Amino acid sequence: MTDRSHLEINAGRLMNDLQGLAGFGKVGRGVDRTAFSEADMEARRWLQARMVAAGLEAEIDGVGSLIGRSPAAGSGVLIGSHTDSVPKGGWLDGALGVIYGLEIARSARESPSWQDAVIDVVSFQDEEGTFLPCLGSKSLCGEIDDGDMDRARDANGQALRDVIARFGLDHTPPPEFQRNRYCAYLEAHIEQGPRLEASGHRIGVVTGIVGIRRFRISAKGRSDHAGTTPMPMRHDAGAALIELGAELLHIFAASAGPDTVWNIGNVTFAPGAANVVPSEAEMLFEFRDTSSGRLDEMESAMREVAAQQRAKSAVTIEITQTASILPVGMDKSLGSLISAAADSHGEEAIQMPSGAGHDAMVLARHVPTAMMFIPSIGGRSHDTAEDTSEEDIVLGCRVLAATVEGLLA
Amino acid sequence: MTDRSHLEINAGRLMNDLQGLAGFGKVGRGVDRTAFSEADMEARRWLQARMVAAGLEAEIDGVGSLIGRSPAAGSGVLIGSHTDSVPKGGWLDGALGVIYGLEIARSARESPSWQDAVIDVVSFQDEEGTFLPCLGSKSLCGEIDDGDMDRARDANGQALRDVIARFGLDHTPPPEFQRNRYCAYLEAHIEQGPRLEASGHRIGVVTGIVGIRRFRISAKGRSDHAGTTPMPMRHDAGAALIELGAELLHIFAASAGPDTVWNIGNVTFAPGAANVVPSEAEMLFEFRDTSSGRLDEMESAMREVAAQQRAKSAVTIEITQTASILPVGMDKSLGSLISAAADSHGEEAIQMPSGAGHDAMVLARHVPTAMMFIPSIGGRSHDTAEDTSEEDIVLGCRVLAATVEGLLA
Repeated sequence: MTDRSHLEINAGRLMNDLQGLAGFGKVGRGVDRTAFSEADMEARRWLQARMVAAGLEAEIDGVGSLIGRSPAAGSGVLIGSHTDSVPKGGWLDGALGVIYGLEIARSARESPSWQDAVIDVVSFQDEEGTFLPCLGSKSLCGEIDDGDMDRARDANGQALRDVIARFGLDHTPPPEFQRNRYCAYLEAHIEQGPRLEASGHRIGVVTGIVGIRRFRISAKGRSDHAGTTPMPMRHDAGAALIELGAELLHIFAASAGPDTVWNIGNVTFAPGAANVVPSEAEMLFEFRDTSSGRLDEMESAMREVAAQQRAKSAVTIEITQTASILPVGMDKSLGSLISAAADSHGEEAIQMPSGAGHDAMVLARHVPTAMMFIPSIGGRSHDTAEDTSEEDIVLGCRVLAATVEGLLA
Repeated sequence: MTDRSHLEINAGRLMNDLQGLAGFGKVGRGVDRTAFSEADMEARRWLQARMVAAGLEAEIDGVGSLIGRSPAAGSGVLIGSHTDSVPKGGWLDGALGVIYGLEIARSARESPSWQDAVIDVVSFQDEEGTFLPCLGSKSLCGEIDDGDMDRARDANGQALRDVIARFGLDHTPPPEFQRNRYCAYLEAHIEQGPRLEASGHRIGVVTGIVGIRRFRISAKGRSDHAGTTPMPMRHDAGAALIELGAELLHIFAASAGPDTVWNIGNVTFAPGAANVVPSEAEMLFEFRDTSSGRLDEMESAMREVAAQQRAKSAVTIEITQTASILPVGMDKSLGSLISAAADSHGEEAIQMPSGAGHDAMVLARHVPTAMMFIPSIGGRSHDTAEDTSEEDIVLGCRVLAATVEGLLA
């Protein structure tokens, strides 16, 4: 480590690159750049050229992730996120963290005191799960096997292997993750929620990425004429599910942790006519928290509520788990470095969980990892309306650069 | 009135006619004989021939109803129901009451002491509402105007006027309801519910046909990321609707009348994904009772629950009435005659409301009207599995014949 100058962020160049990237797959104010779409791959090739121009050695790996490596050797930092989007997504989701990495690495290449620093930049492929969520980060970290790759398909049934071949990547050697090269992975991201804006803070230090438990709760009864069947003789799947749902909302509100969130995202009834007692009813229920213990407690509470409903109604109730994602803690020392970096720019950072998944969730299992949030206007994301003020975007890059200074100085 | 012999019901002939009718549009054990289908109109022509063979003057009117009139003059009784069905319906729904009428009128024509009695038989068209619910009875009673006829269409957009023309009925003069000819309309029907079977009784005297109030209750909020949006910042239309639904079920169970029934028949959420807070949610809610006062009370309770939910959540809640059908009382003297007729066959009749609509609902506004129920096995109806034991079918016809004796003796 040497006594280095400050990393100078060029605000105009940063915004230019973000807007240049947003030109690929542009839809209104947002982008449609799902993994392995033409727009996604064109954006990656454009970004590859920007990395090369910044003095990095840039390659697209066998699953479409783009990594730009500094020519320096030794231990340093990997900065990035993803440039694929959801359909009709926002221009900053993922893109922000990648372009921050590019600008910081470029600034380092331009500064004599930083030229020996390892600052690599990555745009992972398919974080959004068009084919396989966090495909790029999982592949880099060796968390995907041939079977996963063979099975992965998009919603139209298109095979991941086929699109990889279509873009000529099928003979690219598998990526090699040089773990010893990195003392940290840093991912900046828009918050995708309303907390920062509502609290008046501009920088969030992510304490952990929430785990998710997701369930299908279904009730089966009997369809009957809703006029001629006396109430005590019904086996009403709909009523049982509504009572269960209301009780879940009640119990969770009374006993969840301060950061627990839960959602009944869908309800369906069958046959679904006004004058027929529902024979089947189903709901999608999920909850999230950064603590595995808390998730266990909430799952117990959910099962207890279902058991009580089962005991008091004439319908059968089944719970099927459809997803289980473990919570992942972020590195506390790195978090403190982000807070200190924010302080150095006159901003008090707040600690907060990430309610959404990110590539950092994967990387954290392999290298010390931290995430930094900047505000989302109105909390909007995964929507073309997604936006963040230019002042917040530029500040975020400066705070992340100062974090790198703190880490590698 | 004269001192007449008993009306002798021929059980074999009764069952034969019921089974003959069930041959038209046969589907498994049931029938598919929606109004103005080929099967429906063939059945009507077959039934017309049976009426003529029984000594009645039988005509199909301008909306497809079949009326068989006794050649006698004076005041008497109209007996019937409908022979159209729901898609894949049961073999007895409607058909039973029509064939009862045929068998009783035929028995009267055969008996010298009954030949001067007015016992007419009707099979109304489209009671089930393929084009317009209770089309035949409403048309006979003058409750339908040209505009109603012009607008009526089936689910495929086929116009009622067109099918009437297709069957050559468009130049048939409108039916003429000879009110003074009838001192009573009698409609026998399967119960379509489980009460008689569960109570061990074989004859039900219908006290009234329930009124129905039907509503669409919709909640509008805002879709948000279910991971990143803290609970207090959500505008969750789904949660608000579930809480409202559970409270409705609770309040109705606590304060409804002994015969009130209610149903949440359908619930839908939008966008309907596990990880998105629902922006819209909607339910279909209906309740039925024979008392208008009780219906008013329940509607007030419903609106109070909605107002409370509106006050405590950040979503808008709207209630739209989609149907309102007035309850109709049945004639008490006629009901007593049915009870006495049951007694004379060693059966204790029970009093009960009809939870479903019938042509009797229309007729009751114009002539003294009564309905008699016989059991439905397992309460099933509007389903090919619908059935009633032969013993109950034959008993029902004998009790109805004895009711006619009591009325016209």
